[in-house]
Amino acid sequence: MVVGFEKAVSATKSVVTSAKKAPTTLSSDRVINFARGDPTMYESYWRQMGEKCTVVISGHNLMSYFSNAGHFCWFLMPELDRAIRRLHCVVGNAVVDDDRYIVVGNGSTQLFQAVLYALSSSYDPDTEPLSVVAAAPFYSSYPEETEFLRSGLYKWAGDAYSFDKDGAYIEVVTSPNNPDGAIREAVVNRDGGKLIHDLAYYWPQYTPITGKADNDIMLFTFSKATGHAGSRIGWAIVKDIEVATKMVKFMELSSIGVSKESQLRAAKILEVISDDCQNSAPDKEENFFEYGLRLMSDRWEKLREVVKRNGVFSLPKYPQDYCNFIGKYTDPSPAFAWLKSKDGLNCDNLLRELKIVTRGGTNFGVDSNYTRISMLSPDEEFNLLLERLSAIQGTIINGNN
Amino acid sequence: MVVGFEKAVSATKSVVTSAKKAPTTLSSDRVINFARGDPTMYESYWRQMGEKCTVVISGHNLMSYFSNAGHFCWFLMPELDRAIRRLHCVVGNAVVDDDRYIVVGNGSTQLFQAVLYALSSSYDPDTEPLSVVAAAPFYSSYPEETEFLRSGLYKWAGDAYSFDKDGAYIEVVTSPNNPDGAIREAVVNRDGGKLIHDLAYYWPQYTPITGKADNDIMLFTFSKATGHAGSRIGWAIVKDIEVATKMVKFMELSSIGVSKESQLRAAKILEVISDDCQNSAPDKEENFFEYGLRLMSDRWEKLREVVKRNGVFSLPKYPQDYCNFIGKYTDPSPAFAWLKSKDGLNCDNLLRELKIVTRGGTNFGVDSNYTRISMLSPDEEFNLLLERLSAIQGTIINGNN
Repeated sequence: MVVGFEKAVSATKSVVTSAKKAPTTLSSDRVINFARGDPTMYESYWRQMGEKCTVVISGHNLMSYFSNAGHFCWFLMPELDRAIRRLHCVVGNAVVDDDRYIVVGNGSTQLFQAVLYALSSSYDPDTEPLSVVAAAPFYSSYPEETEFLRSGLYKWAGDAYSFDKDGAYIEVVTSPNNPDGAIREAVVNRDGGKLIHDLAYYWPQYTPITGKADNDIMLFTFSKATGHAGSRIGWAIVKDIEVATKMVKFMELSSIGVSKESQLRAAKILEVISDDCQNSAPDKEENFFEYGLRLMSDRWEKLREVVKRNGVFSLPKYPQDYCNFIGKYTDPSPAFAWLKSKDGLNCDNLLRELKIVTRGGTNFGVDSNYTRISMLSPDEEFNLLLERLSAIQGTIINGNN
Repeated sequence: MVVGFEKAVSATKSVVTSAKKAPTTLSSDRVINFARGDPTMYESYWRQMGEKCTVVISGHNLMSYFSNAGHFCWFLMPELDRAIRRLHCVVGNAVVDDDRYIVVGNGSTQLFQAVLYALSSSYDPDTEPLSVVAAAPFYSSYPEETEFLRSGLYKWAGDAYSFDKDGAYIEVVTSPNNPDGAIREAVVNRDGGKLIHDLAYYWPQYTPITGKADNDIMLFTFSKATGHAGSRIGWAIVKDIEVATKMVKFMELSSIGVSKESQLRAAKILEVISDDCQNSAPDKEENFFEYGLRLMSDRWEKLREVVKRNGVFSLPKYPQDYCNFIGKYTDPSPAFAWLKSKDGLNCDNLLRELKIVTRGGTNFGVDSNYTRISMLSPDEEFNLLLERLSAIQGTIINGNN
């Protein structure tokens, strides 16, 4: 399985270098990388916020391993716990009542593995590893994250639609889905199933918030919520204290907790977002989610127009829905575009001809006539994508000559 | 296996609470916890440093996943790479020539697991898992970190002294050793062996620096070097680019890299230490390592005196050696005291009677007449430890009545 980071690294090199040294050369022949969902698009918003989100950390701060000794999640800073709960209340996208437990992780990537451990470690060691499934197309990293250590506790068992084994299993439900933006529910629905809900993209800039998610284990990440991918902060909201406690044990054995500097900064930024969302002054600025939704909607409109015009690809259609947070009907505008080539051609290869790197369908458990494009790149790169996609018809015609 | 964090958490609760709310009550009957090496002792040094080590991070900083796209370790910030290399040059404790590769991790805990993966993942999947050994007494977390996911790649195989299997294996060499402070070399020394050198305590405050370590894979951690445990920063210095690259792959799959906030702050603090060490002004302040060595030597002297006086325990003796960094002969002053009860009694139980929580010998692969005591606690707790140890003879006599 080819997972995107390394490819992304090598292919990104020239782009990043050029973007720093000579941004005006971006529209040249350089390779542009849309394989990874690096959410740098939001940087300009946070720049505008000036000092409101600045954190200052002295040399003697945050030294101990412990953030909250005696608490079941002893490395979680209480201010981050509060900020997470408050933001979910303000947005209305997840139940965070007092009987729900928050576990912080080094991104939701680490928490996903913590959940696998928590759900499988109490099984009899003589039984087979617990099957882990997700409905295709599924997030391309789930298989490798599940398989790379060849754990005897759990193993990747592929597409949930074709899973037919009896007994216990874990199903990952990603909603909105990565890569295709679909709103999802569990598909296996058999006795002995445990569900992990990956809700990384259940925020108003990506999809209408239609209600508070109330699942047993819900994963969120700072990267996709606000764009702060470099902080490596994710969180789980968990109903069962035993599962939450085993996740904490995993975090202890895996990395003895989570960076306090990142937790402090995440708490600050989430509080600023909540403050802005709750600001009812008549002259108030656009809040973060309104800003994000405006940008994403604009990008989707432009992309749909280009795709419609060139006639080579198609994009999924999403139903409009009422967003409780925005207070009106909104169109979904997912963080990734799930592109399909109309004539069954290999989508990645087509785009490589235009020096556009994307992540092909086979990484997500489906055919190569699909590919995933990040919608979270900086403006200049996104505009270049539109420009090159507009030119694709000519390229293909030339290529077929 | 009982590993110390959870025990430490529950037992630390009252201490932390009391230390914050009413420090003067510490000398009462409260339980004091020396099971975990939480290096809070250094806090007062960093407080004295004032603004020199302060970092200021704006809302739009450090947003991307990437720190150095195109570099093999794409999440390592170049300023941290430089600061690590500079500090090792200044201290003279490790070779960091240009052909050595630095990999950053969420503490050396995560890097240890990254090395296990890197050294074992290319083996034939049909062969047995690679054996991982360390000479007893060994760091209590190695067995559980190796075993908890029941990996098919590697497995814990116990004490290196009794390891007699043929074929490939991994030996962890911890020097100075945790728990007993001994300077160590590999003990198995057979064909097919790979070595991991855990050099977390190879710094001048703990042991004389007698030369630059030049091993294939060396692990260091910010926690023990400077006391910043809450930052979760560790680093590996690796000779073989293939091993380093596989470690990076592990870090990508495990947590998509390492907090940039922590990396930035670690870089700043390590640079300040290097600056201070290289300051040749006649009125210069004591540098961090001189300060640490003075404190640790003082604590060891006091502890040895109490232990000698009460006659119940013994402590290891360490040979003095010439420290290239300090420029004179120094006594080792390890981060942990490895206490042995003279009459073969269970050391932990003895100390629990005095409401002192320690980590018993069985956690480290030896008998319960040994126990490990952290030497890195805050002053008031350390003084209370001395006070209670001074009183132990009477307690035991009373207990035997």
